[in-house]
Amino acid sequence: MERQRHQGMAKNTSMRWRLPLVCLLWELAMIVLFGVFVRFSPEADAHWEEERRELNLTSDIENDFYFRYPSFQDVHVMIFVGFGFLMTFLKRYGFGAVGFNFLLAAFGIQWALLMQGWFHSFKNGKILIGVENLINADFCVGSVCIAFGAILGKTSPIQLLVLTLFQVTLFSVNEYILLNLLHVKDAGGSMTIHTFGAYFGLTVTRILYRPNLEQSKDKQASVYHSDLFAMIGTLYLWMYWPSFNSAISDHGDAQHRAAINTYCSLAACVLSTMAFSSMLQKKGKLDMVHIQNATLAGGVAVGTSAEMMLTPYGSLIVGFLSGIVSTVGYVYLTPFLESRLHIQDTCGIHNLHAMPGLIGGIVGAITAAAATEDVYGKEGFIKAFDFTGVYRARTPSVQGGFQAAGIMVSLLMAFVGGALVGAILKLPVWGDAAAENCFEDDVYWEVPEDEESDAYHMHSPDKPASP
Amino acid sequence: MERQRHQGMAKNTSMRWRLPLVCLLWELAMIVLFGVFVRFSPEADAHWEEERRELNLTSDIENDFYFRYPSFQDVHVMIFVGFGFLMTFLKRYGFGAVGFNFLLAAFGIQWALLMQGWFHSFKNGKILIGVENLINADFCVGSVCIAFGAILGKTSPIQLLVLTLFQVTLFSVNEYILLNLLHVKDAGGSMTIHTFGAYFGLTVTRILYRPNLEQSKDKQASVYHSDLFAMIGTLYLWMYWPSFNSAISDHGDAQHRAAINTYCSLAACVLSTMAFSSMLQKKGKLDMVHIQNATLAGGVAVGTSAEMMLTPYGSLIVGFLSGIVSTVGYVYLTPFLESRLHIQDTCGIHNLHAMPGLIGGIVGAITAAAATEDVYGKEGFIKAFDFTGVYRARTPSVQGGFQAAGIMVSLLMAFVGGALVGAILKLPVWGDAAAENCFEDDVYWEVPEDEESDAYHMHSPDKPASP
Amino acid sequence: MERQRHQGMAKNTSMRWRLPLVCLLWELAMIVLFGVFVRFSPEADAHWEEERRELNLTSDIENDFYFRYPSFQDVHVMIFVGFGFLMTFLKRYGFGAVGFNFLLAAFGIQWALLMQGWFHSFKNGKILIGVENLINADFCVGSVCIAFGAILGKTSPIQLLVLTLFQVTLFSVNEYILLNLLHVKDAGGSMTIHTFGAYFGLTVTRILYRPNLEQSKDKQASVYHSDLFAMIGTLYLWMYWPSFNSAISDHGDAQHRAAINTYCSLAACVLSTMAFSSMLQKKGKLDMVHIQNATLAGGVAVGTSAEMMLTPYGSLIVGFLSGIVSTVGYVYLTPFLESRLHIQDTCGIHNLHAMPGLIGGIVGAITAAAATEDVYGKEGFIKAFDFTGVYRARTPSVQGGFQAAGIMVSLLMAFVGGALVGAILKLPVWGDAAAENCFEDDVYWEVPEDEESDAYHMHSPDKPASP
Repeated sequence: MERQRHQGMAKNTSMRWRLPLVCLLWELAMIVLFGVFVRFSPEADAHWEEERRELNLTSDIENDFYFRYPSFQDVHVMIFVGFGFLMTFLKRYGFGAVGFNFLLAAFGIQWALLMQGWFHSFKNGKILIGVENLINADFCVGSVCIAFGAILGKTSPIQLLVLTLFQVTLFSVNEYILLNLLHVKDAGGSMTIHTFGAYFGLTVTRILYRPNLEQSKDKQASVYHSDLFAMIGTLYLWMYWPSFNSAISDHGDAQHRAAINTYCSLAACVLSTMAFSSMLQKKGKLDMVHIQNATLAGGVAVGTSAEMMLTPYGSLIVGFLSGIVSTVGYVYLTPFLESRLHIQDTCGIHNLHAMPGLIGGIVGAITAAAATEDVYGKEGFIKAFDFTGVYRARTPSVQGGFQAAGIMVSLLMAFVGGALVGAILKLPVWGDAAAENCFEDDVYWEVPEDEESDAYHMHSPDKPASP
Repeated sequence: MERQRHQGMAKNTSMRWRLPLVCLLWELAMIVLFGVFVRFSPEADAHWEEERRELNLTSDIENDFYFRYPSFQDVHVMIFVGFGFLMTFLKRYGFGAVGFNFLLAAFGIQWALLMQGWFHSFKNGKILIGVENLINADFCVGSVCIAFGAILGKTSPIQLLVLTLFQVTLFSVNEYILLNLLHVKDAGGSMTIHTFGAYFGLTVTRILYRPNLEQSKDKQASVYHSDLFAMIGTLYLWMYWPSFNSAISDHGDAQHRAAINTYCSLAACVLSTMAFSSMLQKKGKLDMVHIQNATLAGGVAVGTSAEMMLTPYGSLIVGFLSGIVSTVGYVYLTPFLESRLHIQDTCGIHNLHAMPGLIGGIVGAITAAAATEDVYGKEGFIKAFDFTGVYRARTPSVQGGFQAAGIMVSLLMAFVGGALVGAILKLPVWGDAAAENCFEDDVYWEVPEDEESDAYHMHSPDKPASP
Repeated sequence: MERQRHQGMAKNTSMRWRLPLVCLLWELAMIVLFGVFVRFSPEADAHWEEERRELNLTSDIENDFYFRYPSFQDVHVMIFVGFGFLMTFLKRYGFGAVGFNFLLAAFGIQWALLMQGWFHSFKNGKILIGVENLINADFCVGSVCIAFGAILGKTSPIQLLVLTLFQVTLFSVNEYILLNLLHVKDAGGSMTIHTFGAYFGLTVTRILYRPNLEQSKDKQASVYHSDLFAMIGTLYLWMYWPSFNSAISDHGDAQHRAAINTYCSLAACVLSTMAFSSMLQKKGKLDMVHIQNATLAGGVAVGTSAEMMLTPYGSLIVGFLSGIVSTVGYVYLTPFLESRLHIQDTCGIHNLHAMPGLIGGIVGAITAAAATEDVYGKEGFIKAFDFTGVYRARTPSVQGGFQAAGIMVSLLMAFVGGALVGAILKLPVWGDAAAENCFEDDVYWEVPEDEESDAYHMHSPDKPASP
């Protein structure tokens, strides 16, 4: 208690007026912007009956809602429970992990509906939203959740909201460049979500480098139950990833195929992760950090190619390799990044999202470049890559080149954007905690009394329990 | 241990014969009643092939199962994991929260299938059930879970079963009056589920007022991990609420629209909740109680209007306001209700369900009254409000009036029914615990030994750990 | 620490080279076999557009993906979160429960795709996989998860992988005999998954009998929070079981009916479980072990008959009885099996899967034998039992006989296969722990430091906290 008060003097972390002000003003801005711009898409509008007749659809079941809503809900769970609980592994930052993730995602999806809407669903001055927009908004926010993983425990909720505002904006610009200008395929977001989100977050955390972070090193670890909470997050991400990668693919075979490829890739990834986790520890013991994270790399790494004819064995290979890369990253790269490059990456997003995201982009480029009419069928070929209109003459190898360009653009946007946003977050007005208070819920949350005393007891076993 | 034995003498809480008797006899009654009355709806019956041909449906995919089953499963998760885990926030009542919720809901859905079946699915002497009946049964039980929140920790499992029996009955009558007699729209149940369920529960807890409850005040709090368990419940309720509000809407645009409106409302609600939670605490720290509960008010408050043309910005406004009302309620109203009106509301259902439920009813009435053929389209207008048959001449403003009447009826049913049931539960035969044993799993559950000793240790830090 | 080192000398449990080798080699084998054999089914292949036209399907929504994907995801959650977390009830084996379940299931689904593929989806030298194959692979692995329950805490991860390899193989053979040779119906797997899986696991654990297991008896118990983690598993299994039993049923009424029957059975099961749990305890207190397990018996027991015209009240009866059988089993049979028959069944799978599985097989045989054209309709009758081709003359009573034969075959396969695999697992090369180290994560996992010290503190309250 005494310690807390002392630190309070050192750095003002009170959110009392700053956080409410930001939340309320920004939400009011959302209301105004939604009022001006956002309406229902024809499939969610009460005029649908007429629309349906016009489109010559025989049944309500052909409403896009029934193609995508189950996947949407799975993605929704990944964003809020998946990311939220994955980050509860820290012993004293569970409230912040789940709670701040909740806050930034709830704000982010609104802003993403607008930003992505202006770019992709703008018609006669209005943004028309349907279930696909909800999925895309969740996707966009996913990239913010990833970046959050790098700075987990070291930022104030206001900083996270500022981060979200800018990152969603940049995400949407980057996505527009990739999907519309480069005509790149990236349904599961290896480039737009993972590569961009991870390198953006890593750049931000580099700028926010805290030299004295070892002061809170004891808190930057897990306890037995917090590791189990984190496994809830891991498993929901792992199980629902096939929905993630297939959610916005074309109706029919593309959604079907994307789910199968992702399922295969993730299964293989678990085995190579377990293998390397055990191999790289002296006594061969498994490390929960790897199981919680590297097992998911397989989903990231087929994000671009899952809807393509990657084939089940191709997926196994990709998943297998990305599990290895990710686990090795946790053991060797993370310490190196921290000590040499001053990149303090709390959750190791470099291993889970950055490297597998790059793999995903590359695999996507190769798979696209290798596409043939024989493998896809004449119609399937055109449909899979949208080789229509101005793109009807594009060849697979050219498409592969554009896919590779998409990786580069995403990286560039991440580095430049991250540096910019990092600089903004460095301003001393956002109420972030001192180094010795990082990874500690007590700074921004009312924490129940008795467990805290218990926790203090746990951390200082040398202190006698009774005087 | 000594203490427990002492209390056991003071009040007989043994369930040994009472609980089994009630469970077994009531389940046998269910079996008999199901045997007499319940059969499959044509869409679940093996004669479906013929039915399909008659209805001229070209594909099995037009079976209602495929329109509603994913939503049903989401609602199912909300009832059992959502409500169950939301109530695990108490440090020593996790078994009771999850376990009793499980018990009452499992009984309640069976009784609801019968009660609602007699009112709505009765044909030639049989109740014909399909997936929509399963959803409605879950909905009905949702109102019991809400009422359970008010009396959490203070009642025996038998009391909860008695409560369920009566509340499901009254719910079904109220629902019949609203939907069939008043021809009111309430697909997400702002009135039928939330307003009714919450005021019913509040009336019951008022009647069961325990003057000495402060004796167990130390147990009426959370610990660090129990707050994280509760967040599992919160997030599943929050994420799946779009399914809840759209589950029984008309096929097509109505389901689609209801999901979008709810998604928007909930997102806005998170921001206003966070803002006021921080603002109302001296040091600006966030309170888990608010995050766990008030963030959900936005789902309740669009329960009636979500399937209408509320529009996304309308949803944002409703969610924004209900988050504020709910959070302010937790800070100011709950203590007032307890000290002045003797309403002991364990989970604060007044803030999460009662007030937002009323808002939901009012917003629904206004939205209905404001409906125009221009906004809905000619066909959409008739379809949205079922202005067919005897109701074909009803105007929006008249509909708005009936909607408002629906609120009043629900309140009346809740107060009268709650008083009645409360009086029954007050009889000294149900085995409820003494005031000093409330909020304690040990009364009705075998609790693992060593953690208990650990817990005792935690609660009395002044007691030496070694003699 | 000293104790650990000592045990390390006694028995070599290091996984350092053995586990990586098995994981990597087997995964490489999967990649090769997938490369040779596995391709997309027509509904997941890019040629689908042409296929669709050939099949005269008017819409993409008729792709099997939309009939089964939501159920697939529910089943997926049951396998990884359901089984995984159900087994976290042990105080110090949560990592092993969730983590090893993850490992064996991830390997098992790959091997199952191959094994089941060769038997059921082999065409022109290729296995063509779609969403139904994914479900079936999950089902197959479900039987391994069941067997894992019997040996939980007593085996090394390598043993579990070996078990998975053999059990998946035998499962697929048994399934082929039942479904193809005997033409038996078993969509929810009462026989193929539960009866086979459970008796297989029980035979294995019998062979692996450890006479000194009472040395780790203190660890073979739960603590307060581990019981709550286990309830996550229970509830997801319970809620999603309707999806499990309906996932691979025929499109339309069969899926619809299977979900309703399972919903009813499970609801009744909760009440009889609670009744007997309370009745069989001296003070009438409820036992978490029963609530976590026996409440699920109703899902197992309608696994065969759920898609038949069992009727809702028939389901209630089956669920009611299986809850009783299962709970009584936990109280009386499990101790008997351990002391007399030397069957050490950690999770009590005999009560949750073996007996209810047998009930399920028998109920299925009776329901099939009792089928009439009157109840099913002429077309429905043929469709429900696939009485076409060489089976078009089969009568219900003959079908009932074959169903009963299916139970016998499953039992035989389980006993013989289990004995064989048990003998293999008994070889002293797999690195299993000594008896005093069973049920302890520390053997195979890096466990966070401070909680361990806390745990040690908990287990030895006589040890002073300060010197």
